[in-house]
Amino acid sequence: MMGLMQQMPLNISSLIVHAEKHHGDTEIVSRRVEGDIHRTDWAGIARRARQVANALDGWSLALGDRIATLAWNGYRHLEIYFGVSGSGRVLHTINPRLHPDQVAWIANHAEDQVLCFDMTFLPLVQKVHAQCKTIRHYVALCEAAALPADTGIPNLVSYEAWMGQQRPTYDWAEIDENTASSICYTSGTTGNPKAALYSHRSTILHAFAAALPDVMCLSARDSVLPVVPMFHVNAWGIPYSCAMVGAKLVFPGAQLDGKSVYELLEAEGVTFAAGVPTVWQMLLGHMKPAGLRFGTLQRTVIGGSACPPAMITAFREEYGVDVLHAWGMTEMSPLGTLCTLKNKHQSLPPDQQMTIRLKQGRAIFGVDMKIVGDDGQEQPHDGVAFGDLLVRGPWVIREYFKGEGGDPLRDGWFPTGDVATIDADGYMQITDRSKDVIKSGGEWISSIDIENIAMAHPAVAMAACVGVKHPKWDERPIVVVVKKQGLEVSRDELIDFYQGKTAKWQIPDDVVFLDAIPLGATGKMLKTELRKKLIDYKLPGT
Amino acid sequence: MMGLMQQMPLNISSLIVHAEKHHGDTEIVSRRVEGDIHRTDWAGIARRARQVANALDGWSLALGDRIATLAWNGYRHLEIYFGVSGSGRVLHTINPRLHPDQVAWIANHAEDQVLCFDMTFLPLVQKVHAQCKTIRHYVALCEAAALPADTGIPNLVSYEAWMGQQRPTYDWAEIDENTASSICYTSGTTGNPKAALYSHRSTILHAFAAALPDVMCLSARDSVLPVVPMFHVNAWGIPYSCAMVGAKLVFPGAQLDGKSVYELLEAEGVTFAAGVPTVWQMLLGHMKPAGLRFGTLQRTVIGGSACPPAMITAFREEYGVDVLHAWGMTEMSPLGTLCTLKNKHQSLPPDQQMTIRLKQGRAIFGVDMKIVGDDGQEQPHDGVAFGDLLVRGPWVIREYFKGEGGDPLRDGWFPTGDVATIDADGYMQITDRSKDVIKSGGEWISSIDIENIAMAHPAVAMAACVGVKHPKWDERPIVVVVKKQGLEVSRDELIDFYQGKTAKWQIPDDVVFLDAIPLGATGKMLKTELRKKLIDYKLPGT
Repeated sequence: MMGLMQQMPLNISSLIVHAEKHHGDTEIVSRRVEGDIHRTDWAGIARRARQVANALDGWSLALGDRIATLAWNGYRHLEIYFGVSGSGRVLHTINPRLHPDQVAWIANHAEDQVLCFDMTFLPLVQKVHAQCKTIRHYVALCEAAALPADTGIPNLVSYEAWMGQQRPTYDWAEIDENTASSICYTSGTTGNPKAALYSHRSTILHAFAAALPDVMCLSARDSVLPVVPMFHVNAWGIPYSCAMVGAKLVFPGAQLDGKSVYELLEAEGVTFAAGVPTVWQMLLGHMKPAGLRFGTLQRTVIGGSACPPAMITAFREEYGVDVLHAWGMTEMSPLGTLCTLKNKHQSLPPDQQMTIRLKQGRAIFGVDMKIVGDDGQEQPHDGVAFGDLLVRGPWVIREYFKGEGGDPLRDGWFPTGDVATIDADGYMQITDRSKDVIKSGGEWISSIDIENIAMAHPAVAMAACVGVKHPKWDERPIVVVVKKQGLEVSRDELIDFYQGKTAKWQIPDDVVFLDAIPLGATGKMLKTELRKKLIDYKLPGT
Repeated sequence: MMGLMQQMPLNISSLIVHAEKHHGDTEIVSRRVEGDIHRTDWAGIARRARQVANALDGWSLALGDRIATLAWNGYRHLEIYFGVSGSGRVLHTINPRLHPDQVAWIANHAEDQVLCFDMTFLPLVQKVHAQCKTIRHYVALCEAAALPADTGIPNLVSYEAWMGQQRPTYDWAEIDENTASSICYTSGTTGNPKAALYSHRSTILHAFAAALPDVMCLSARDSVLPVVPMFHVNAWGIPYSCAMVGAKLVFPGAQLDGKSVYELLEAEGVTFAAGVPTVWQMLLGHMKPAGLRFGTLQRTVIGGSACPPAMITAFREEYGVDVLHAWGMTEMSPLGTLCTLKNKHQSLPPDQQMTIRLKQGRAIFGVDMKIVGDDGQEQPHDGVAFGDLLVRGPWVIREYFKGEGGDPLRDGWFPTGDVATIDADGYMQITDRSKDVIKSGGEWISSIDIENIAMAHPAVAMAACVGVKHPKWDERPIVVVVKKQGLEVSRDELIDFYQGKTAKWQIPDDVVFLDAIPLGATGKMLKTELRKKLIDYKLPGT
């Protein structure tokens, strides 16, 4: 027997309709590429999103056509988010930090029809456009007057000239909720990038989940600054959740340095911010020497890579900001776990609470997860046993775009490529990437644990642990360190620093000092690159 | 082009699976009909819900069969919630406060196969079972030993004997998410009751929405006491949302008096409670004379009928508890609006905030609403213009069970039977029931406004405003008042009390004092009954 409830598809257009109707005058503030601060509101975004949809119709773009962006976080990007998906096209946010050849490869693979880009990326587009076979139209996110005369890019128009004259009314596409809404390529450190193709349904369900009190806890009382880029898994879904709850959005544009982010946090009464550890490191680096405090910031979600414990402590204890550890991936829209305490943890002493906060967190309702050993057997949830982390749920991919890489699932579960423990309370902790684990004498050493210890040393700015071939133990860990400017630490001092902090056999055999560790487009350390740099390195005594 | 995300149906069984896996040791505390306090946890509920499912299978009940309950809020009722819907049957929560003939009528109309009842309702079941043609099995929610030998009820078993011996493993039904999950009859003051038939999908989407920060704001740090009965629109969806977020649940059983509720709030560290105004009136009535305070309660949602402003003020100012006004109806699962402030309201002075808090609130994402005039034209959202309130959304009914009452929708919108205003910020305020509005000299007078003023008088316990025929003005309002025990107020004093609080022509023409105002099964005033009592009443001077 079927229920007798109304059939309303879960479509992205319903988000912008809701935000305009119930939160029309709630502000959307953007630091523009031009450098100034731009102010609009949800009604303004909705009106211009409809203009974008009309402009796309004007170019006879079909339902399902991919519309690409190379853009910072800002109001125009937000308009494109809703205008593209709302009109039944597929939003393709390209990561501009990728190598130009990869940008072109991705645009071709996605068969993008239109590319909208911030003027920052004009040189990149000039470099790649000849390689992009399917792009018929280029849109520069600027006023007509700001468009240079001779860019060499064919069919280039300014965004404002293109959409500004369109009608502000539009009937949003009535589409099946499983229709594709956006596409995002993984940064794939090995092989060609593969893409997750999100649906309207998965996006709305993810938006509900992301706004929950135990996740990002988003409401109409929040002012939200996503430092995480809109080209990085839709800024973790924040634009969608904010439309759902009517939160104020504050976009940092291209200026992600500590000073710029701090000024925006303070000027716009930001209550919630989200980003990768690197950005928060820069923010604290700006605030600490100047003795600055937060006026309104209450909580941050930190994700994208494991967060150094020292940073969580600094935010909580020195600045009174609640830091939530998050974990997810492109293939998961991206949220999988958030680390919020349970009722029973509230009376624990601070150090025991911290032990929990350092984990990646509990599965959000909708996401199911398990850890399995080499033999595929599920491991116990005791916080000690570890295994490959597998996930499933309505915002997890079932396959990659165009079937790349074959069937990625194992019996319906998506293998994350992470190694993790899960404790009795359901808190998951990543112990390593499957490929970064150091296998020494038949035991596994978590490269992340080794890095975190080094990061706690006052002279260490960045640390990477990698395995090096060893004749007897198969592999032994070494730690590669970038020192903080003006501070010193010797090899022996750092090795000594490990004493008592980890098992003796897990202490790195050596320290290598470098000026920089190679970072990927999303700010993650590129260990593959690092290993190439260390190709001639030899362990002491071998 | 379709998205490439996993297809996971939104099923109620996924809630209990999640709660057991990630919040297994989170407590479920119940005051039993037996009088004692019973403690279990989400793992215990899940295990016994699976036993219930096996027990239902044992009786060869088909998918879609209706399983009825006549039960208070408690752990056994919760087990039945998940055991019944999870195994593909339809949960039918009958309101035991209905007249016995109505209970039988409803059971027959729903074609219930099983009736599970608390021992409190044994006399009721003894009275109605002969009329219930479709019920094959009766289950008394007690131990085998507590079952009286000679009840006269055929096929009666005790719950514990029936399900206690079943296997604790069960594969939850794999069903389409649009399958019916539960059924709830309206209390319908006119005509026969009609039923909303909820689906798994509508229930899960409602559970997401209800847990949002701007709605009930439910998390794993909450201890939740639903005073609102589980037979009243699934306790506003609280059991489902609590399973979703892993909150602790505290059930008050049959004891809803102020003292019992207060003791439970304090003993179980309750942070959030929900119920109709009558219950809170009793609670404050217990606390005030004894000078009691709340230890942990942070917020309440008050709904079911318009909440007297004086109560919101008392909770906020005297007890520091945030009171949220809610509005919904059986046909809406039930939540439509919640009254939480926006960012821009936070700096308003308290009296202006209170003006907003007195409204029913903003539409939750998913619920779309509009107000229309007699001509069907949409009215402006200016907080002044009013009209019939229409709603739509994925947890709003499209028709009643068995098509009763024909097509209830107007162009796809469900007419709520309420008259309301909506302001520029989207805050909806019910001004009256369509049928209770007093039409005086071509103008509409809100009976609720007139009642709220009387309720603010210190000697008034309850007030009802009804229209009385008038030769010149068509109708004129009078106010029917129940005085607080030991306190006095005269007709003239109360009429004087209205001066300056409303327009002169809206002041009631008379006051009628009664010992009690008839209340319906859900605690709402029955104005139809009241009008019958006043059938011989004549306005002064007519």
